[in-house]
Amino acid sequence: MAKNFSTRQENYSQWYNDIVIKADLAENSAVRGCMVIKPYGYAIWEKMQSALDKMFKDTGHSNAYFPIFIPKSFFSKEASHVKGFAKECAVVTHYRLKNSDDGKGIIVDEDAKLEEELIVRPTSETIIWDTYKNWIQSYRDLPILVNQWANVVRWEMRTRLFLRTTEFLWQEGHTAHATKDEAIAETKQMLNIYADFAENWMALPVLKGTKSPNERFAGAIETYCIEALMQDGKALQSGTSHFLGQNFAKAFDVKFLSKENKLEYVWASSWGVSTRLMGALIMAHSDDNGLVLPPKLAPIQVVIVPIYKKEEQLAQISEKANQIKKALQKKGISVKYDDRDTFKPGWKFSEYEFKGVPVRLVIGPRDLENETVEIARRDTLEKEVLKITDIENKVEHLLEQIQKNLFQKAYSFREDNTYKVDSWNEFKEIIDKKGGFLLSHWDGTEETEEKIKEETKATIRTIPLDNNPEEGKCIYTGKPSKQRVVFAKAY
Amino acid sequence: MAKNFSTRQENYSQWYNDIVIKADLAENSAVRGCMVIKPYGYAIWEKMQSALDKMFKDTGHSNAYFPIFIPKSFFSKEASHVKGFAKECAVVTHYRLKNSDDGKGIIVDEDAKLEEELIVRPTSETIIWDTYKNWIQSYRDLPILVNQWANVVRWEMRTRLFLRTTEFLWQEGHTAHATKDEAIAETKQMLNIYADFAENWMALPVLKGTKSPNERFAGAIETYCIEALMQDGKALQSGTSHFLGQNFAKAFDVKFLSKENKLEYVWASSWGVSTRLMGALIMAHSDDNGLVLPPKLAPIQVVIVPIYKKEEQLAQISEKANQIKKALQKKGISVKYDDRDTFKPGWKFSEYEFKGVPVRLVIGPRDLENETVEIARRDTLEKEVLKITDIENKVEHLLEQIQKNLFQKAYSFREDNTYKVDSWNEFKEIIDKKGGFLLSHWDGTEETEEKIKEETKATIRTIPLDNNPEEGKCIYTGKPSKQRVVFAKAY
Repeated sequence: MAKNFSTRQENYSQWYNDIVIKADLAENSAVRGCMVIKPYGYAIWEKMQSALDKMFKDTGHSNAYFPIFIPKSFFSKEASHVKGFAKECAVVTHYRLKNSDDGKGIIVDEDAKLEEELIVRPTSETIIWDTYKNWIQSYRDLPILVNQWANVVRWEMRTRLFLRTTEFLWQEGHTAHATKDEAIAETKQMLNIYADFAENWMALPVLKGTKSPNERFAGAIETYCIEALMQDGKALQSGTSHFLGQNFAKAFDVKFLSKENKLEYVWASSWGVSTRLMGALIMAHSDDNGLVLPPKLAPIQVVIVPIYKKEEQLAQISEKANQIKKALQKKGISVKYDDRDTFKPGWKFSEYEFKGVPVRLVIGPRDLENETVEIARRDTLEKEVLKITDIENKVEHLLEQIQKNLFQKAYSFREDNTYKVDSWNEFKEIIDKKGGFLLSHWDGTEETEEKIKEETKATIRTIPLDNNPEEGKCIYTGKPSKQRVVFAKAY
Repeated sequence: MAKNFSTRQENYSQWYNDIVIKADLAENSAVRGCMVIKPYGYAIWEKMQSALDKMFKDTGHSNAYFPIFIPKSFFSKEASHVKGFAKECAVVTHYRLKNSDDGKGIIVDEDAKLEEELIVRPTSETIIWDTYKNWIQSYRDLPILVNQWANVVRWEMRTRLFLRTTEFLWQEGHTAHATKDEAIAETKQMLNIYADFAENWMALPVLKGTKSPNERFAGAIETYCIEALMQDGKALQSGTSHFLGQNFAKAFDVKFLSKENKLEYVWASSWGVSTRLMGALIMAHSDDNGLVLPPKLAPIQVVIVPIYKKEEQLAQISEKANQIKKALQKKGISVKYDDRDTFKPGWKFSEYEFKGVPVRLVIGPRDLENETVEIARRDTLEKEVLKITDIENKVEHLLEQIQKNLFQKAYSFREDNTYKVDSWNEFKEIIDKKGGFLLSHWDGTEETEEKIKEETKATIRTIPLDNNPEEGKCIYTGKPSKQRVVFAKAY
């Protein structure tokens, strides 16, 4: 493992990119803005998917699949949706290529022009509500609780691996309900699931709240979000859940016959998280030695490395290592025993350290004699020599400890970087010098929000759900305000 | 559940379509040729994915993700590949829409024309080998054993749900090897995995073999396939595994330094199965009462329906039913207890019968008295009243029996519809009247294959791997032949 990577201090952005590339998580492809997710990175994403998918199913949702293409006209049907989504997108105009006249290449066949252009989905509300129209007649057909795992495309001018890419992977839930209350309850339930996942799987503390009108999803009545703080003091929106009211039902004419025999428009929610979570995960915990992964999402939780001089020693160590491996696997722990003779132990140590494997066990000839094993944890880099007896319980316990420690560390970091700010000068200084979450009063107008953004690049990340009402004056205009909101610069 | 659906005799093609639609598996979308996979259909696909994914991982493969877009020029790099894949495809030419001048809609922004058009992937060999170029320097980097679960698009003029759609879901494995032998071994291993999956999960007997040059994958040296026989006597290609030689390595200049320190081109395989398997599954086992599913792929394996008159009875039945449900779930069996009061038992019986739920348990007041339960199996439609004691073992055993019975039934059907044919008149008559697999001699030329196709619509489905060499004369030209090949009309 090459040591030529940046520290956070030197260049935070380069540090992030170095980890993504050198830990084999993802890379840029030949197609501008589209990434290749490499096997090690994809294995983390699969763990995320599997945990989230179970949470969705445990709350009654099913998966389905809708077309990747959306007829252009669909976007015009919901007035605010079209503004937000129909602009920067991939447009399919033709369905055939042909040989060029000079025979040297292939060109677009102008005879195969589509009557109506197709858009590669940037999000699927429109095509899904066009489908729901045929699924819903009566209250008996409701609720519909459907999720889709899919790829989506938003044409981005400036891209960064995982954080902002032209194509990304995500899940999008789209639910249909008979009542407003039920749709709101669903929207909040999914926000809570996202927060639960972020905190208990990703070890990432998040604020739960709503967005200001300015930052709302195009087509939503209310957007709920979870917001996390990264190590450079910038916020990262990690998941959103939207209460869509009857907007899409009206746009696509989806009505149902209620229990009271009245024809009513259907109520909707939609909610999603994406491969952007990978960016959050990497940035939240990693250090200047590379990636740090919470055990629950680590593809390899424990690596065992042998140290030996003679072949005969290796055989003995391997026997012991394989015993430990089996005992750990029985507990559902994923273990890799790396006995490759093409790499030296020191090289392997750096490799797994850089790739964020939570626990490393090392067994050498002396360990055989003493019935011991060296155990190292990635989060604190501490090492210890332990008796081999009962090692599987010790490792299991350590993995839990690391999971907790990472959350606690990130939580303390957030606490240390959250400020109640009541003076505009202080606001500007903190945003500029330190970053972090700034709790300040806001007069509730879009205009003020825009001006603060222009002057400081900070935006309102969220209006926290657990806010205490508090009389105060807007940080910018001095006008009266009833609660603090969370400002930060954001990814 | 409406009874207005076709029988196989009346209209096989309509029967298939009715099952897909009325069992809530899939439907056509607003986008020509693209389907919506509904939750019940998608749940079957998820079970397929999960079984296959485990088989891939158990043989050392990892998942990854590559871009959905492929630069047009990539297709021209492999001479035969371009012929097969770059023609009927979705072409992205622009990356922005804008408001029309009349303000009434949105139009393509001509200022946002791509310099090079992007093709929505019909298959990913080109973009993946362009990526592998950077991953492979030395023999130490090999093998690469990567799989991708993804959507692909091939512009089809005539589409049928699951069997042939413009967009479909699939997995595509792409492996890279240091030697020819290793690449061939991988190609064959994956063919065996597909056959294993088809037979042991889908209960679908398949022939394993190679394709004639005419039917080979565009860019392959050899294409292996599994072929199944449907109830209308037509063949369905259910999976393919390609030995690609060094074709893509040469097209994308992917070389490695061998152990002997020589620069050599890398050897390749690719292999895939798609949502087309859903079509095979539906057609292989279903009957005139609707869908029949092998237990291993059924989203609901057992449904329990209560019969009662009074609320009080329901309470007692529910207690018993929930006990059974728990006992079955402990064994890993998926159970639905349908106590909805909005539908009558008879309606529920038809519903679950039509949706192919393998086992139905019915509990009524008399069953409570007698400690019994009525058990019905979907494959044979037989019913039996059983003592409730030990019911979970009985159900478990029955599910295994159904799985075996479905395979056996499909196997006998194939045996009954496989013919050794040595006369051209007989060949034409069987193909025309009965269909099925015809084992006949062939002179090995593309010309003859084409002529047979023209005259009978039959093609060579496969040259079986377990063929016994046998001297004979070509069914069409009378020229000498050394083995029989399998002819059939195909989907």
